[in-house]
Amino acid sequence: MVDDERVPGSTLLLVLDLVGVLAFAVDGALTASRTARLDVIGVITLGVITALGGGIMRDLLIGRVPPATFSDWRYLAVAATGGVLVCVFGHRMGRRRVARTLTVLDAAGLSLFAVTGAGTALAAGLGPVQAILLGGLTAVGGGTLRDLLTGRSPQVLSSGLYAVPALLGAAVVVLSAQVTHTDVVGIGSVWAVVAAGLCFALRMLGVVRRIDLPGPRQPPVP
Amino acid sequence: MVDDERVPGSTLLLVLDLVGVLAFAVDGALTASRTARLDVIGVITLGVITALGGGIMRDLLIGRVPPATFSDWRYLAVAATGGVLVCVFGHRMGRRRVARTLTVLDAAGLSLFAVTGAGTALAAGLGPVQAILLGGLTAVGGGTLRDLLTGRSPQVLSSGLYAVPALLGAAVVVLSAQVTHTDVVGIGSVWAVVAAGLCFALRMLGVVRRIDLPGPRQPPVP
Amino acid sequence: MVDDERVPGSTLLLVLDLVGVLAFAVDGALTASRTARLDVIGVITLGVITALGGGIMRDLLIGRVPPATFSDWRYLAVAATGGVLVCVFGHRMGRRRVARTLTVLDAAGLSLFAVTGAGTALAAGLGPVQAILLGGLTAVGGGTLRDLLTGRSPQVLSSGLYAVPALLGAAVVVLSAQVTHTDVVGIGSVWAVVAAGLCFALRMLGVVRRIDLPGPRQPPVP
Repeated sequence: MVDDERVPGSTLLLVLDLVGVLAFAVDGALTASRTARLDVIGVITLGVITALGGGIMRDLLIGRVPPATFSDWRYLAVAATGGVLVCVFGHRMGRRRVARTLTVLDAAGLSLFAVTGAGTALAAGLGPVQAILLGGLTAVGGGTLRDLLTGRSPQVLSSGLYAVPALLGAAVVVLSAQVTHTDVVGIGSVWAVVAAGLCFALRMLGVVRRIDLPGPRQPPVP
Repeated sequence: MVDDERVPGSTLLLVLDLVGVLAFAVDGALTASRTARLDVIGVITLGVITALGGGIMRDLLIGRVPPATFSDWRYLAVAATGGVLVCVFGHRMGRRRVARTLTVLDAAGLSLFAVTGAGTALAAGLGPVQAILLGGLTAVGGGTLRDLLTGRSPQVLSSGLYAVPALLGAAVVVLSAQVTHTDVVGIGSVWAVVAAGLCFALRMLGVVRRIDLPGPRQPPVP
Repeated sequence: MVDDERVPGSTLLLVLDLVGVLAFAVDGALTASRTARLDVIGVITLGVITALGGGIMRDLLIGRVPPATFSDWRYLAVAATGGVLVCVFGHRMGRRRVARTLTVLDAAGLSLFAVTGAGTALAAGLGPVQAILLGGLTAVGGGTLRDLLTGRSPQVLSSGLYAVPALLGAAVVVLSAQVTHTDVVGIGSVWAVVAAGLCFALRMLGVVRRIDLPGPRQPPVP
């Protein structure tokens, strides 16, 4: 989604983005293969939608059409590969290993897309608050489509530490770009890795420790 | 969503729009806090989506990207405020009062967005029929996203007088602009208030009197 | 959706598109009138969404805004007509006849939109792979919205031969354009009909013979 010609030096963003695409594609396809009775095309389709949905939403909102998905074949190729991998090797995994794998992949995709989403928004000239929000949207968008299409309650609305780590990761990217007075190209690998690592650690901490944010105050039960 | 620089004199549209955003944000957050087990971030997120969803859909369709949500911080600030208000004060409301409040807020947001949606479409140069439809879409879009994300049947498809008042309100705006031979700036506060009031009154009448439009004719039960 | 002024000679695409719109509008409205308790406005609305949803998604992704739906009144008129037809005549159909009609209409809309979607994408200057995918998206997009809004599992994810025929039909269009070294205008009626016929035949074959693609390999049940 980051065009190498237009944004020189954005190879880092591209690599992080493609790793995120792979993580979400395997996540979506694995979810599909276990929770719904889908054929192979359905499994691969849901993998691709999960992997590319967040980035497509972001690109539509910043007016980058056709989205990178369509102008850059690598996104589609990586996403489809993730779906095919699940069809071929997914059956070998036991139920517990699937659950663990899904958690880690989802956290990885969340972290990477929060960073690349915020970076892409900055590179497109959007302001800091907008970039943080678009980082969050890129991170949670694909998973939300996956949940809607498989009839599940969207994770972003119910799952403890999910949107918050993504927004924090995106905020680190934006902050580092502000501090170093450069656009996203200047964030360098250090800050991007710090931001993604922070998001990932926070998300995993939330899962392992079962940390839930407090709900809104409830009316007294009579 | 109406940029003051680009469309001088559109202060009225902006004010109506922001009041609609607040109404839908409280509506969405209150719905979220009662029908689903969401944490505070989930409640605020659903409030923001309900408040801004319709306007984002409209802006995407008329090619105004990034949507006003992103270029004008006031929309986000007002929407988030609505969500926070619900988290802080929402628990004090009894069940019946919540139901009544939701009905009124939803009707208010519907009416205001029908007017501002149609006005924005006219200001963007779209034709009268298109402006009426985009007014309707702006009015029902956010609530439909809210219903989809919380797993409920979309109100616009099932609830008696819901889309019809919105389309009528939008039609009044378009008609007034046609009659006075001006674009939306010229509709003036009188027509905007008349249009919103008509939509609101019709919607509330439908709720109070439980008016349902007739369904399609059903096949005879053997 | 294809503007006659901009793309001379695209009358064929327009006609195929409008027939597809009518098929999907009747399909969506008929589904709505039988599976959910909707009033007439709800039935017509769902018909219109089913008919126009896929084309709107495609137009957003290729940056054609406002989408043809809004710039060309014929799309809306045909879609609304389909919904009205169902409200007036739908009750006369027995249950079995409804099921058969839905299957044929859905297959017809799928085939026509796969062809016109791919053709539109080619005419907009997109590459061959992108055109095939956008043909598929145009074909399955409206039906997926219909399923989401009525709370059903999306057909594209679960129903045997559904996405595959659409992608094949789109591929024939793209291939013919490549072979004849022309853009979509040159595909001529022969290739368009061949592509749509292939998609339709394959889809109907899948329904009649109950052909399901194999699912992903499942873990052994202990």
